[in-house]
Amino acid sequence: MSAAPGTRHAPLAVAVLGAGRIGRKHAETLAHRVESCRVPWIVEPLEDVGRACAADFGAKWTSDPAEAIADPAVDAVLIATPTNTHADLIELAASYGKPILCEKPIDLTMERTLAAISAAEKAGVPLQIGFQRRYDPSYVRARKMIEDGAVGKVELVTATSRDPQPAPLAYLAVSGGIFRDCSIHDFDLVRYLTGHEVVEVFAYGAALVDPAIGEIGDADTVVASLRFDNGALGVVTSSRRAVYGYDVSTEVFGSGGKVVVGEAPETLVRRYGKDGVTHDNIYWFLQRFEASYVVEVEDFVACLREGRAPRVTGEDGRAALAIADAATQSFKEGRPIAVAKRPLPAGAGR
Amino acid sequence: MSAAPGTRHAPLAVAVLGAGRIGRKHAETLAHRVESCRVPWIVEPLEDVGRACAADFGAKWTSDPAEAIADPAVDAVLIATPTNTHADLIELAASYGKPILCEKPIDLTMERTLAAISAAEKAGVPLQIGFQRRYDPSYVRARKMIEDGAVGKVELVTATSRDPQPAPLAYLAVSGGIFRDCSIHDFDLVRYLTGHEVVEVFAYGAALVDPAIGEIGDADTVVASLRFDNGALGVVTSSRRAVYGYDVSTEVFGSGGKVVVGEAPETLVRRYGKDGVTHDNIYWFLQRFEASYVVEVEDFVACLREGRAPRVTGEDGRAALAIADAATQSFKEGRPIAVAKRPLPAGAGR
Amino acid sequence: MSAAPGTRHAPLAVAVLGAGRIGRKHAETLAHRVESCRVPWIVEPLEDVGRACAADFGAKWTSDPAEAIADPAVDAVLIATPTNTHADLIELAASYGKPILCEKPIDLTMERTLAAISAAEKAGVPLQIGFQRRYDPSYVRARKMIEDGAVGKVELVTATSRDPQPAPLAYLAVSGGIFRDCSIHDFDLVRYLTGHEVVEVFAYGAALVDPAIGEIGDADTVVASLRFDNGALGVVTSSRRAVYGYDVSTEVFGSGGKVVVGEAPETLVRRYGKDGVTHDNIYWFLQRFEASYVVEVEDFVACLREGRAPRVTGEDGRAALAIADAATQSFKEGRPIAVAKRPLPAGAGR
Amino acid sequence: MSAAPGTRHAPLAVAVLGAGRIGRKHAETLAHRVESCRVPWIVEPLEDVGRACAADFGAKWTSDPAEAIADPAVDAVLIATPTNTHADLIELAASYGKPILCEKPIDLTMERTLAAISAAEKAGVPLQIGFQRRYDPSYVRARKMIEDGAVGKVELVTATSRDPQPAPLAYLAVSGGIFRDCSIHDFDLVRYLTGHEVVEVFAYGAALVDPAIGEIGDADTVVASLRFDNGALGVVTSSRRAVYGYDVSTEVFGSGGKVVVGEAPETLVRRYGKDGVTHDNIYWFLQRFEASYVVEVEDFVACLREGRAPRVTGEDGRAALAIADAATQSFKEGRPIAVAKRPLPAGAGR
Repeated sequence: MSAAPGTRHAPLAVAVLGAGRIGRKHAETLAHRVESCRVPWIVEPLEDVGRACAADFGAKWTSDPAEAIADPAVDAVLIATPTNTHADLIELAASYGKPILCEKPIDLTMERTLAAISAAEKAGVPLQIGFQRRYDPSYVRARKMIEDGAVGKVELVTATSRDPQPAPLAYLAVSGGIFRDCSIHDFDLVRYLTGHEVVEVFAYGAALVDPAIGEIGDADTVVASLRFDNGALGVVTSSRRAVYGYDVSTEVFGSGGKVVVGEAPETLVRRYGKDGVTHDNIYWFLQRFEASYVVEVEDFVACLREGRAPRVTGEDGRAALAIADAATQSFKEGRPIAVAKRPLPAGAGR
Repeated sequence: MSAAPGTRHAPLAVAVLGAGRIGRKHAETLAHRVESCRVPWIVEPLEDVGRACAADFGAKWTSDPAEAIADPAVDAVLIATPTNTHADLIELAASYGKPILCEKPIDLTMERTLAAISAAEKAGVPLQIGFQRRYDPSYVRARKMIEDGAVGKVELVTATSRDPQPAPLAYLAVSGGIFRDCSIHDFDLVRYLTGHEVVEVFAYGAALVDPAIGEIGDADTVVASLRFDNGALGVVTSSRRAVYGYDVSTEVFGSGGKVVVGEAPETLVRRYGKDGVTHDNIYWFLQRFEASYVVEVEDFVACLREGRAPRVTGEDGRAALAIADAATQSFKEGRPIAVAKRPLPAGAGR
Repeated sequence: MSAAPGTRHAPLAVAVLGAGRIGRKHAETLAHRVESCRVPWIVEPLEDVGRACAADFGAKWTSDPAEAIADPAVDAVLIATPTNTHADLIELAASYGKPILCEKPIDLTMERTLAAISAAEKAGVPLQIGFQRRYDPSYVRARKMIEDGAVGKVELVTATSRDPQPAPLAYLAVSGGIFRDCSIHDFDLVRYLTGHEVVEVFAYGAALVDPAIGEIGDADTVVASLRFDNGALGVVTSSRRAVYGYDVSTEVFGSGGKVVVGEAPETLVRRYGKDGVTHDNIYWFLQRFEASYVVEVEDFVACLREGRAPRVTGEDGRAALAIADAATQSFKEGRPIAVAKRPLPAGAGR
Repeated sequence: MSAAPGTRHAPLAVAVLGAGRIGRKHAETLAHRVESCRVPWIVEPLEDVGRACAADFGAKWTSDPAEAIADPAVDAVLIATPTNTHADLIELAASYGKPILCEKPIDLTMERTLAAISAAEKAGVPLQIGFQRRYDPSYVRARKMIEDGAVGKVELVTATSRDPQPAPLAYLAVSGGIFRDCSIHDFDLVRYLTGHEVVEVFAYGAALVDPAIGEIGDADTVVASLRFDNGALGVVTSSRRAVYGYDVSTEVFGSGGKVVVGEAPETLVRRYGKDGVTHDNIYWFLQRFEASYVVEVEDFVACLREGRAPRVTGEDGRAALAIADAATQSFKEGRPIAVAKRPLPAGAGR
């Protein structure tokens, strides 16, 4: 929303890389929702998609990321391209000293993830990772309550995510698997909500929704048990298909009680009839988290303006991936796996 | 949200009259949220407020409504000025043949309300009234369910509105009283949800929140019983102060069940502690109905483009006011009062 | 539940008058649930019903109320006969000095109600009226909260009762009408919860469920607006038919917030499917208030043992009837009606 | 509740072994709630406790189980003694051919559990195990829905149990550990609700509530991941201390949706104030499951009368213990453990 008169800023120019669904959404947010912001470039390999998107938001189009990133008029970049390009683009943006907001995950491999983080750190550019749930008003409120002591000492954390239906098999085949693609949001949330690190994981997985998912070595239904560095326990469950809609809920339990972020009804309507009392369930993650994507981008811009570090760092991206890596290995090997710590002496930390 | 490429429209120019809280919000919606729309003029008596608002949305400023309305580049006008100016501005816009979206109510008197409606009708310009609740996803869903038979034949309707705190006394003194200022939203909702007209009202009122409200002849706590044209009964209750926040809920009950639009929690968070299970309540009407204001303006523009009649007409404004008038008279005279029908032979109808 | 060893009491002998559904239930409670209590007599005109009931609870049967009431072994009487016999039986029991628990209402006429109360007062026998909702854990908790200040000063009270289906027309014809038969529970509740008296009523009524109900001069759907002695307002709505079950809810709103006693789900089960999220609603008043009937009888016995006055007095019965009388008159005459105060100088009070 | 006249049965005499809290409750149910049932003996080592209990329910007292069990007037026995006596008493009752209702668990060791089941089978006497949750109306309803296809093919099961506070350490030391003492209810529930067997368990445990619990080799906070024989996954979490009360909830998710048995509010009251909207949580398992204990005993008697097998068998007791054994071993050894199948060729089965 626009600021009050008198708090003008120099317009901030953010190049948007990727004009798919989420790239368009971020471009619209930057162009229309964030005060005194503009989108100078849309970078997109598909010319007609890129040109249309650019026209909508008053941008130029290019298929060459370097052209946009190198442009001196560009203040920052937002990366919403396919995952396998994230690390390269982070390194490129870092080499030009441009601050970065990158969709999760940084990369499906830890090696490239570490390299990209390192590039941003060496260049001294802010790197924000797109775990949008951290900007959801319910999760922000829950974390505040927990910080303020509402659950006392954390003892037991439960997180569930279920999509309404599986993504296409072609996508799943390059997704890194359900732990890196889906559960990773919960691995990040449990770190965010508790302020503790996961040190060990044991994971069961099964292909119950679609045997083809099992044939590519992946699972569509998983249970990952967690041990935290303070001794607390946790469990993350995920499914690729919930016929009733998009089902995300999280509970943090401790010595002083519990805080729950519950499921989202679609509206405030309840119907009472002979068959009972019914309300609609939310069906799609964009219904649930639409506002979060906007706040995420607003916060990226605000951090740049105020010289603050982003709320979700490269290290947050790495730590969630490390849990997902351990869960994947545990699922395949049938034994608990220690979660890798950050290998470097360096110190992004939390 | 912007339309997909290829569905371009000629930009529609909507002058915004009034740069207060709600005028600004509408200007922002027109400038930033509605595809291919622009705000050529901000009309506002206070120069600095008007200029600042105009600058934010790429508009020119004037203190003279006629200057903006008469501008041939202006396609339509949005009236968000104080209530006592609405009827004059509707007549002015009608005289220039410009379609109108006017905040509720049209006027506090039935005479001027009828005159303004008549002016728009004679000029053949669309007149949409700003009962924003009709664009709320929950109320839209409820009406759809009721139309589809979810409650069978309507028998008993209950509607409640409570503000978190009274407006300033200076505002209340010119507000037309609680029935015309606050309950009027519920009088409109019960017509919208049931498709039936209210024919008689009996109202109790009391000044329990603030005796000063009683001293100006108004009430801050009211119960208005309703009889509908199909024999159904109803009740609207309102209060100027609910310490727990903004409390709006509505129930339509009938031979086949009931549909309830319930209260709005602020977030999806619940806290469990020694004192029980607690969630936050919503506090402010803009939290509850923010999306509705946007959809209302989007629909105004879409109706103009598609040549559809607005969803909320001048007659809807008159009918709700007629119920509020009857309630006010009943409150003062202590007896049931018949609701005035539209006096003209004419035929806006519903 | 039985008392702990060592708190023995002399067995209390309570004659039960009436062996219908509710009489049987009370007899079972007295015989099996209340410690050291027994049922010496079942009084019932139908011999086989009476004998069977007596056999189940170790009682003797008679068709003659006087035989049971006069028995020196009888300590108290419980009246669960048809309403038109209540006042006579109260007077009879009073004449023998026997404490009385009488189902509501005392009588459908104010004259006989006052006479019965007076008889009990003159005889100095406790007279408890069977408004069982006052013993429901939810209503007890709500009243405690309100007494403790949870809503501050009471300003607006809302109470709803809906039966799943109308009683047979033959019953309705002698029921005294919907206000005396159904809404009376809510008229009692609003007095109980607020501690205030209703001074005026305006009531709308309609026969929407069954025209035959209208033909006997009764309504099946009603809205009764209330004014309280402290200036607060209220509304009671009732319906003879809710297809989704038994629907009772009550809200007390005031300067400090509100307390709601809500609807009762049948179980704790929720089902999530393609059609949304559904739970069962309770269907029958005995599911909702079964425990209350037991506590009511336990409390009657406890009051006798401890020499306490009953929690629900003859005056409570009269006051609720007076509101029902005023509502009935208002419904018939179309104007607000003052609620009759207790005519006597005497002093049951609350 | 008593049966209707005309369905008389010969009185059934059930000896109650153990006059502690739960033994008293069962004796009361048999003596007062179940039609045509009586309690001929209370068996209790503490004479005063036993005599008092016997007096309350019209029974004789003995400290010698054999005296009661051998009495030809005794038709069946209910075992509510400490766990370490269950197997011996089952064998004793079986040797006299008396049907048995035994509180869970049969024994803390699999060896004695199998021996007791075998003794009952050889003697041909019904053996019902006291998993009272299977008689809770919510769980009964949930199972019915699942059997009727509400969740389609079961894929993911989640069950949580939390006590308000830990039992005394002296009790915990002989309880068999949290999996056999607390989680065992959920291990039984997941079998009951899904109709599938658990084949493997991985369990984490920690002593977070009280380090002394860790010092005796037990945990107070656990997460047990499950694999079922149909490939479905599950997770059971338990805690010895939830400050907000007794927290039991269960979710069965599958290809067609999910069924949830949720938490239990203490009453139907909600309070709205400046701090939000609050309701009371239930605090004690007897509030949550009181009705279940009564239905459990009623069903035991009904099964005997009708010659039906009990709803909860010795095999159910063994199977839940086998899961608890595997969970305990997994917790101690840090690896997944296969759940032992019934070793015998025999065939209680489910």
